[in-house]
Amino acid sequence: MSDLTTAVTAALTADHDRLAAYLKLQTVSVQNRGITATVTFLTHAFEELGAQVQVWRDVAGSNPFVFATFTAGPHGNADRTLLFYNHYDVQPPEPLAEWQTDPFTLTEKAGYYYARGISDDKGELMLRLSAVKALQASGGLPCNLKFVVEGEEEIGSRHIPQMTQQHASDLAADAIVWETGGKDADENFQVTCGAKGILCLELSVTTAEKDLHSSLAAYADNAAWRLTQALASLRTADNRVKVAGFYDDIRPLTPTERRAVAAMTLNGDVVKQHFGLKRPLITADPVTELVNGSTMTLNGLSSGYEGAGVKTVIPKRATAKVDCRLVPGQDPQHQAQLIRDQLKRNGFGDVRVTYLLGEAPFRSDLTAPFVKMAVKTAHQVYGDHVRLVPNMAGTGPQAPFFAAVQAPIVAVGSTWAGSGPHAPNENVRVADYQQAACYTAELLTVFGTQM
Amino acid sequence: MSDLTTAVTAALTADHDRLAAYLKLQTVSVQNRGITATVTFLTHAFEELGAQVQVWRDVAGSNPFVFATFTAGPHGNADRTLLFYNHYDVQPPEPLAEWQTDPFTLTEKAGYYYARGISDDKGELMLRLSAVKALQASGGLPCNLKFVVEGEEEIGSRHIPQMTQQHASDLAADAIVWETGGKDADENFQVTCGAKGILCLELSVTTAEKDLHSSLAAYADNAAWRLTQALASLRTADNRVKVAGFYDDIRPLTPTERRAVAAMTLNGDVVKQHFGLKRPLITADPVTELVNGSTMTLNGLSSGYEGAGVKTVIPKRATAKVDCRLVPGQDPQHQAQLIRDQLKRNGFGDVRVTYLLGEAPFRSDLTAPFVKMAVKTAHQVYGDHVRLVPNMAGTGPQAPFFAAVQAPIVAVGSTWAGSGPHAPNENVRVADYQQAACYTAELLTVFGTQM
Repeated sequence: MSDLTTAVTAALTADHDRLAAYLKLQTVSVQNRGITATVTFLTHAFEELGAQVQVWRDVAGSNPFVFATFTAGPHGNADRTLLFYNHYDVQPPEPLAEWQTDPFTLTEKAGYYYARGISDDKGELMLRLSAVKALQASGGLPCNLKFVVEGEEEIGSRHIPQMTQQHASDLAADAIVWETGGKDADENFQVTCGAKGILCLELSVTTAEKDLHSSLAAYADNAAWRLTQALASLRTADNRVKVAGFYDDIRPLTPTERRAVAAMTLNGDVVKQHFGLKRPLITADPVTELVNGSTMTLNGLSSGYEGAGVKTVIPKRATAKVDCRLVPGQDPQHQAQLIRDQLKRNGFGDVRVTYLLGEAPFRSDLTAPFVKMAVKTAHQVYGDHVRLVPNMAGTGPQAPFFAAVQAPIVAVGSTWAGSGPHAPNENVRVADYQQAACYTAELLTVFGTQM
Repeated sequence: MSDLTTAVTAALTADHDRLAAYLKLQTVSVQNRGITATVTFLTHAFEELGAQVQVWRDVAGSNPFVFATFTAGPHGNADRTLLFYNHYDVQPPEPLAEWQTDPFTLTEKAGYYYARGISDDKGELMLRLSAVKALQASGGLPCNLKFVVEGEEEIGSRHIPQMTQQHASDLAADAIVWETGGKDADENFQVTCGAKGILCLELSVTTAEKDLHSSLAAYADNAAWRLTQALASLRTADNRVKVAGFYDDIRPLTPTERRAVAAMTLNGDVVKQHFGLKRPLITADPVTELVNGSTMTLNGLSSGYEGAGVKTVIPKRATAKVDCRLVPGQDPQHQAQLIRDQLKRNGFGDVRVTYLLGEAPFRSDLTAPFVKMAVKTAHQVYGDHVRLVPNMAGTGPQAPFFAAVQAPIVAVGSTWAGSGPHAPNENVRVADYQQAACYTAELLTVFGTQM
């Protein structure tokens, strides 16, 4: 074990209680819970490590941003700055009945850590702070560091565009490390260079001013049927989005990106078993779809009587929540308009489309020196099991960060394919958590000395 | 005003508190609430009028039936017996926020009575008892009467087939008057001679063992999409059921039935305005559809995240509640099998179809003497505004009653087109309530003396 690895291990042990305390905070942004306590917690955590901390409250309507800076140690490179982006908010824990442990209590069991946020991404921030502590204990930080931690990632990072504009000079850095990352289902560590965008909509239809007795179905329209038919008109039987122009703006992969995708793997059987999927994967090429496919997902349906037994009503109203994951070339506002237009063309002009939020997609230049360095360092820590991934399948506000900072972005971290970041029993493996902290410390060392 | 009308008016006044007390009982059968108290209440109400009362608890698994018999008065016809069928249970009052009055408090306002059950059908039973009281005060009952009141109509009258078999000799009668009836949207009083059947199903699909992060929509199936597509595959854009054989067993109307349908009217504009329908009626011939059309209604949809804001999950499970109204010739079990078969043919063999309940349709012979007498008497009370209706659009367990009693069935009562029997603000008009009580008293008089 190298000296740095030993120091990281010691830091993780020392920091275990801080990790548990951070996860205990119920920072559910969609319910506006726990924000103030969490900001206070983080301020103290950074200050204890010697950071200069600012809490930015100058972005109108936003939860506060926690901004912390560390300067390079006496042997470090004061000309190089790395920026970490994380978020302190988490998804709601529901459905509670499906958790096998308390969602806000860090529970270690059989090599796994369980808690809401352990993977997405309170755990990631804490392991980065442990890497900082280890580096400080091993001769000092090899470069300058900045951390910006937002409180609205799980509700769409609505204020990141404004924050990154207002604070572009504060954020100035040579490279950006994104909130989370980790291993794929085949245990390959991924260095991920972008994120999909997202568009979230609510589709609703109202067919009457009251629920009707279902005997009147002989002549009266039904909101649940109407919404069902409208939704079904947007998707083929083999699960392609049937909205004119929906896929048109997707930028084809470059040769470098294609090579990266070709080296990626996804074990369909492992994935199926892990999630208990009842039917085959809906695509023959899941890897390419994860990187450069645009999706339309029904997140929820609600209409009429949903209780026990029977209630023979015609629902007056039906709603669906929909998200679309977007890839480079696609724009959320434009995609929303395509969907609105298609619904009208399909005869469903009465279906109301409400734009809930949108984020642009982003992908770093895979040939950037920092990207290559992150991959090379990964090989040193993870051996052969490393893959360069053009972008994650998930979403994050990378586009506005890039616009402000003009630096490459990579996402690396401690998750695995079964982490279940938005689901009950969210988890990471303890060994992955430790390995990711080591990688972070190594990456900062190489970044300070070799670039 | 005739002496009988005067007596009915007096009885209704005297019985107002009893009506209010009956409606106050929260007899919500789907939630198994209020059953015992309501049975006790009815037993006392019948006994106060001099009936012999039995509470039948001998039908396994059923809520009790209240059975009451009155013998003809000294001047009445002891050879003729009329059987009333009613139910003491009501639909749940939800959604509570949409009630303008307390659902379990009889409220009189601007000529309307409001309460859950005032139309369907606690009010109907009470006005029938007021008619009994008026006849008793006017020289005695003109015929024998039987009342059977069940407690499971709103959950599908599951035990009526068994009860009517076990108690066929108790129920013996020359004619049957059904639970409720009234006026159509054009203010015509209807003498209705049958009821549609019903089939209630739950359709559900499970695509995974857990909800997934929606970034995985690149390859993972989605229960909400799957259910949406399965449902949409069962219905054309113009709202015809697209299930092979679904309409095949419908018995064509006889010439007499066709004449009755031709005389019926439905003012589409009035209906649209009353219910606040946002789109045109879904059929060009609503009257025929109400009488002899078979429907498939989505009563409810539920899947995934239905709360506020955004939660980007792939739902693992989705469910729909469905009812089909059936007409003479159709059988609920057979129709369920057709739907199952069609889903399989459409590629949705993974959609689980659960049979919740079924009731057969029924239609009396429109040429039966009792039917003609009910119409003729209606003309005496309601003038020209009377229509013979082959069957109601709603459902009731008439088929098993007919099988046991072998007597014609007519449904008459106090409702109007805006009564909203299963909806918030269920109501009847006070004038209709009084008129229906008069009609009932007249009908019994004619039945005892002229048949």
